Amino acid sequence: MTVSAMYPGTFDPITLGHEDLVRRAVTLFDRVVVAIAANPSSKAPMFSLEERVEFARAALADIDRVEVTGYTGLTVDFARKHKLRVIIRGLRAISDFEYEFQLANMNRHLTDEVETAFLTPTEDYTYISSSLVREIASLGGDISEFVSPEVRRALLKRCGRG
Amino acid sequence: MTVSAMYPGTFDPITLGHEDLVRRAVTLFDRVVVAIAANPSSKAPMFSLEERVEFARAALADIDRVEVTGYTGLTVDFARKHKLRVIIRGLRAISDFEYEFQLANMNRHLTDEVETAFLTPTEDYTYISSSLVREIASLGGDISEFVSPEVRRALLKRCGRG
Amino acid sequence: MTVSAMYPGTFDPITLGHEDLVRRAVTLFDRVVVAIAANPSSKAPMFSLEERVEFARAALADIDRVEVTGYTGLTVDFARKHKLRVIIRGLRAISDFEYEFQLANMNRHLTDEVETAFLTPTEDYTYISSSLVREIASLGGDISEFVSPEVRRALLKRCGRG
Amino acid sequence: MTVSAMYPGTFDPITLGHEDLVRRAVTLFDRVVVAIAANPSSKAPMFSLEERVEFARAALADIDRVEVTGYTGLTVDFARKHKLRVIIRGLRAISDFEYEFQLANMNRHLTDEVETAFLTPTEDYTYISSSLVREIASLGGDISEFVSPEVRRALLKRCGRG
Amino acid sequence: MTVSAMYPGTFDPITLGHEDLVRRAVTLFDRVVVAIAANPSSKAPMFSLEERVEFARAALADIDRVEVTGYTGLTVDFARKHKLRVIIRGLRAISDFEYEFQLANMNRHLTDEVETAFLTPTEDYTYISSSLVREIASLGGDISEFVSPEVRRALLKRCGRG
Amino acid sequence: MTVSAMYPGTFDPITLGHEDLVRRAVTLFDRVVVAIAANPSSKAPMFSLEERVEFARAALADIDRVEVTGYTGLTVDFARKHKLRVIIRGLRAISDFEYEFQLANMNRHLTDEVETAFLTPTEDYTYISSSLVREIASLGGDISEFVSPEVRRALLKRCGRG
Repeated sequence: MTVSAMYPGTFDPITLGHEDLVRRAVTLFDRVVVAIAANPSSKAPMFSLEERVEFARAALADIDRVEVTGYTGLTVDFARKHKLRVIIRGLRAISDFEYEFQLANMNRHLTDEVETAFLTPTEDYTYISSSLVREIASLGGDISEFVSPEVRRALLKRCGRG
Repeated sequence: MTVSAMYPGTFDPITLGHEDLVRRAVTLFDRVVVAIAANPSSKAPMFSLEERVEFARAALADIDRVEVTGYTGLTVDFARKHKLRVIIRGLRAISDFEYEFQLANMNRHLTDEVETAFLTPTEDYTYISSSLVREIASLGGDISEFVSPEVRRALLKRCGRG
Repeated sequence: MTVSAMYPGTFDPITLGHEDLVRRAVTLFDRVVVAIAANPSSKAPMFSLEERVEFARAALADIDRVEVTGYTGLTVDFARKHKLRVIIRGLRAISDFEYEFQLANMNRHLTDEVETAFLTPTEDYTYISSSLVREIASLGGDISEFVSPEVRRALLKRCGRG
Repeated sequence: MTVSAMYPGTFDPITLGHEDLVRRAVTLFDRVVVAIAANPSSKAPMFSLEERVEFARAALADIDRVEVTGYTGLTVDFARKHKLRVIIRGLRAISDFEYEFQLANMNRHLTDEVETAFLTPTEDYTYISSSLVREIASLGGDISEFVSPEVRRALLKRCGRG
Repeated sequence: MTVSAMYPGTFDPITLGHEDLVRRAVTLFDRVVVAIAANPSSKAPMFSLEERVEFARAALADIDRVEVTGYTGLTVDFARKHKLRVIIRGLRAISDFEYEFQLANMNRHLTDEVETAFLTPTEDYTYISSSLVREIASLGGDISEFVSPEVRRALLKRCGRG
Repeated sequence: MTVSAMYPGTFDPITLGHEDLVRRAVTLFDRVVVAIAANPSSKAPMFSLEERVEFARAALADIDRVEVTGYTGLTVDFARKHKLRVIIRGLRAISDFEYEFQLANMNRHLTDEVETAFLTPTEDYTYISSSLVREIASLGGDISEFVSPEVRRALLKRCGRG
């Protein structure tokens, strides 16, 4: 039995929390596709799709059985088309939980071929979110504990501090 | 004793979850006014007030003792002016709960003539929200399980897919 | 259209928060039956059913269209048998919310003839719960802000402090 | 790559919600061990371990790659000893979420060889819990929508109503 | 031992809930610096930094050991530079709680010299938020129970109703 | 200005999370009284009051300005009598949050001389609770990461494993 997983998100930018989740996912599933949404509905991303893909590839380069790709359109359509049987989501907080559940139920109504599984990052990373990282970088704070060196350099340059 | 109820909201657009709630409300109250806020504070709606009123009227046409109208200004002012003794709100999730409670308490301080009652949609519809429906439609997903046929046609047209 | 409501609970003992909710409920429904569960499943009550009914009757004596009664068996069975169209529940906190929702959905599967409506007590009473009141009384604290004088006297006597 | 999963719990008794989760789990993992805790810490179960195992076996008999067993001792010790790489848990509500997260983090500190993955039952079953089912059965309510016929018969007999 | 506290926020505008919290904070700490963020990340404020500082100074003028100032940059950097040992935050709701915890943990990673303490406003004010106050004022509602007279006048003028 | 704090609880037994909180509290307040409730209302403790006090004294022996004592009766009465101006509580999770808020509001109604401040343990300890530690010890798990060596030895002996 071979199960491929999709880990969808905005990854604007990828953090050490995301990396931790991918490392856990590859111990459970045969293949993990990190799928980066080109145009997230809620807000304009700080980094272009190309940059976000590049950051994720650099951060995950040492992990086997992982691919990074951009995508447009409905998440479940991408999963179904590429035979990705399970969508992985990280849960850190109650507000994540609610939105994620609503989404998981919506997705289940859109297709029954895809399941959603929630993993939890280690508690060392539960407080990290891409949006807080962007905010701290823009205010001149030290983000070296939250993202990889490549991402840190790019963020500082983008915020006019590099 | 005659009690009229107000069911306020943005209804952008009305979903099967909203419809379910109205059907329950008319078994409890003598008259239900579905009141659609012209200019919700948080975001620009996808559909004009006229369209949102029209969709709601079509979806609720078969239910007795229901009226649909647009409104501007404070919700409690509308309720008080039209002798609507109770404001009905649907609760689906914790985040709804918190915002709704804050609002209910605020409203109680603005007037003591209006009470708030929370109803719950059937669990078949708890996962549906207008914003997720808009997002799925804009990404080309199938929304026929979430909204009535009229709303679906209008959404597809608006998203350039109809 | 006449709608009768059931307000079920343990009422061990009735607090000012419960009273507040009943006063609101009678402005919305034609008749409110305060129904006290004889043997709540989770724990042995401090007061007997007779005492709890007596306290509630004393506390609510000045409100029209209210009845107090004990009951055994399933809540929805009582509601259906007595043609009580709506079950009223007070919501104060998230943990209430979850349990109440689960219960409301269970009840809806047991019968479709009964709806659940949630009301909120004024924020002056959100912090009051029967269990905290019992605990404070047993530790010798002053509970006069939380319950009516009759209930207070009975509680102090029961705790060996009256 | 072969991944075996452990689905631990009290299963007092197994419900249609549990069954639904197992059916989803076998599409993701090669083998699913439903592991029933002999002596749950918090409360005495209504049914003996033998009964709970028997109910689960009957309910899950038609699903391939599933085993049912009782266990004592620490959950992660059982998982590690039997090379079960992932612990599956069902998430239905926020209160589940919190306890489950605390447990998942505790488990991670006890061993790094076991991951926790959360799945969600279909919304048709989110309102079902073993404890509510026991309560409804003991009050004479109809539980045929919540459990399999075998479990229903056993519950009614146990409650002196069969 | 002398402990100075920082109470950071947007204060757009300061409400009676904020005032209540400051009155409590000065009974616990030797000095309280109300620090108003010049450019909050999430949204453009309704009032300029100068106005927000002025409103806060007027509202808090009668309290000893309180200072009001604007600031830019990272909150913990401001605290560290001015030897403010503790950051005070008000907690009213679960959604506050989550964001605040994430922030407190992030801040702890940025510096170990600053602690976060959460205080709760009296329940009379838990329902008040600056954003709801702005919304009610813009819709012509009466906000005299939520803000001081100076703030009320400024809000009405800003909303074209003064 | 001298502020003394009370840190009340059951401490059955004291964990590294509790210790972490005390270390933070002494940087904010002049004196911290760790007050151990003799007879917590909800459940019989595993360890006697004498044992719980002894464990806490051993664990906190190296911290200045800390006292450990048992108490009976109402928490706010103890605080008021001993001029402890602030009650410290640790917040780890939403369910903590709700109960604690209710309690803080109740306490505020019992006396206005005592404030409640919530501190957060480092995320390394958020998953630790006394009840989970007791459960893991009773099942033979390794608890050396969660409690001090003295507490560990006593727990193992109590569980018949020392």
